[in-house]
Amino acid sequence: MNAPKRKPLVVTMGDPAGIGPEITAGAWKALRETGPAFAWIGDPACLPPGTPYEDVVTLTEAGSIFSKALPVLPLSLVAPVYPGEPDVLNAGPVVDSILRAVGLTRAEDAGAVVTCPISKAVLRDAGFPYPGHTEFLAALCEVPGEEVMMLASPMLRVVPVTVHVSLRDALNTLTTDLIVKVARTTAHALKRDFGILNPRLAIAGLNPHAGEGGHMGREEIDIIIPAIEQLRARGLNVHGPMPPDTMFTDTARANYDVALCMYHDQALIPIKTLDMENGVNTTLGLPIVRTSPDHGTAFDIAGKNRAKPESLIAALRLAGQLASYRAANPEPPEMRFT
Amino acid sequence: MNAPKRKPLVVTMGDPAGIGPEITAGAWKALRETGPAFAWIGDPACLPPGTPYEDVVTLTEAGSIFSKALPVLPLSLVAPVYPGEPDVLNAGPVVDSILRAVGLTRAEDAGAVVTCPISKAVLRDAGFPYPGHTEFLAALCEVPGEEVMMLASPMLRVVPVTVHVSLRDALNTLTTDLIVKVARTTAHALKRDFGILNPRLAIAGLNPHAGEGGHMGREEIDIIIPAIEQLRARGLNVHGPMPPDTMFTDTARANYDVALCMYHDQALIPIKTLDMENGVNTTLGLPIVRTSPDHGTAFDIAGKNRAKPESLIAALRLAGQLASYRAANPEPPEMRFT
Repeated sequence: MNAPKRKPLVVTMGDPAGIGPEITAGAWKALRETGPAFAWIGDPACLPPGTPYEDVVTLTEAGSIFSKALPVLPLSLVAPVYPGEPDVLNAGPVVDSILRAVGLTRAEDAGAVVTCPISKAVLRDAGFPYPGHTEFLAALCEVPGEEVMMLASPMLRVVPVTVHVSLRDALNTLTTDLIVKVARTTAHALKRDFGILNPRLAIAGLNPHAGEGGHMGREEIDIIIPAIEQLRARGLNVHGPMPPDTMFTDTARANYDVALCMYHDQALIPIKTLDMENGVNTTLGLPIVRTSPDHGTAFDIAGKNRAKPESLIAALRLAGQLASYRAANPEPPEMRFT
Repeated sequence: MNAPKRKPLVVTMGDPAGIGPEITAGAWKALRETGPAFAWIGDPACLPPGTPYEDVVTLTEAGSIFSKALPVLPLSLVAPVYPGEPDVLNAGPVVDSILRAVGLTRAEDAGAVVTCPISKAVLRDAGFPYPGHTEFLAALCEVPGEEVMMLASPMLRVVPVTVHVSLRDALNTLTTDLIVKVARTTAHALKRDFGILNPRLAIAGLNPHAGEGGHMGREEIDIIIPAIEQLRARGLNVHGPMPPDTMFTDTARANYDVALCMYHDQALIPIKTLDMENGVNTTLGLPIVRTSPDHGTAFDIAGKNRAKPESLIAALRLAGQLASYRAANPEPPEMRFT
């Protein structure tokens, strides 16, 4: 059997005044010979001077010229771009790049969407109603509320159950149902796209020492253990609640495929501490594959030739793997949600 | 000028049914030739069979025989010891070992106290009124409430401002005054015992992205930034609030001497993830030097010859360094608390 032909990926522009254009150029240089091939939806005027690029109309065309030049699906900006100085007037094209990328991927022209960083503050000022990429993509894919954020590096995969809310709101919104829902989406995606047939989920405790039997907080007893019991009853391979401080050591990590964390920094501290450069953000629960680098627009260093493309490269490689796995393994109906 | 003669350290028994006796024997083997010398206050019957030990009466005697045998200041237990099966009847001698160790150190016979792990649950059942070693030591040293817990490894030093409370209680007890107090004790100890003349303190935010200017929680604005301003006004070298997820990367750690963290796992996750074996717990704010290994009694592996002495060895080495520095550098009055 021949491997299915890999479809090129599509990369969004992100904020053109951030490091998106330069890391896209850097990633193209790193991947031009090995792939995965991709096209960038953006204004080529923002690319670093001297970047070999070529305007294309289709993804197929992009795949065939990728080794020679960065394929660009051109997009026109409204205001001129000065690196490090975002302009709210360009919010429209920033959003348009995302819309087109999702459309191409849902139409199966592109294998996956990889997003360059946007500025939430700039888009908020422009009236954009979503807190970030992830929620916008879920809405575009008509599965609002189903999105789950996973951060993956070669050493660790983490999923925060509560994400971009204050720590106090994280405590107030954590429920058994939420943990069960996020765990099910995570387990399904690991089977569906990562090829892990019986994924092992480690569920973190919330409190120090996972509450020490109720002596330091009752959320483990009242919220987390009931979720673990429900997930086990569905046949999922879960263990926990794990004491948060010891669950990310080398030895502990060998025993699970993903750590389900109760709040943002419980997930983000260990993954960024272990490997700042190769972390990839991937959105589970969508009908399409989507990854992104695990950093922001970095306006402070934009245009200075200091931005490292490693995280975008890792995001492209992971997107390529997931898209290939998905293309080679059409989902059997019985796989959907145990 | 001759270096001042190093005083031996004193090691407490800890729970005799835990791994304390075996890691003490292991640490003695590792350190018998290089030092630092120490005496153990415990019942020699709990030591692993074949451990060369010698009963001693004074610390001076302990120092002179250390290279040949583990010096033991003997203590009698009440109940027989079965590894892995703690007995509440031995709570008295466990506490007595700590009392004697603190007495010897306050009397300047010993250079520092190094404590082996105790079981909070066992001591609680015996009516012991302190949540752990640290609070008990502060009470014995007549400075209750002044104690500050620092975890140190070769890669990172962290101080949790709130410690053994639920995450919700951590949020509810965090105040500007508490951060200022803990930061001052920490800065003073780094100058006094670690020889860091102008310690750089990184103050963590509480919320994801340090609250993003109030969009994800207001504790940074209402509590943490005012503390930073007060500390700066006192001339301390502090920066923050730092986004918690990126402050423990290699690059970020190079810019500070200690990270002040707002809750237990914000401090403990990064240090244990980076280096599980060489972490040392040290109590700042006491009139004596005290360290301990950064793990518990490990009843599940006690007596099976599986416990690793590395953390106790690191605790002994750090205690030896701090005690030597302190002995060589009597505290000038103007150093106390900027």
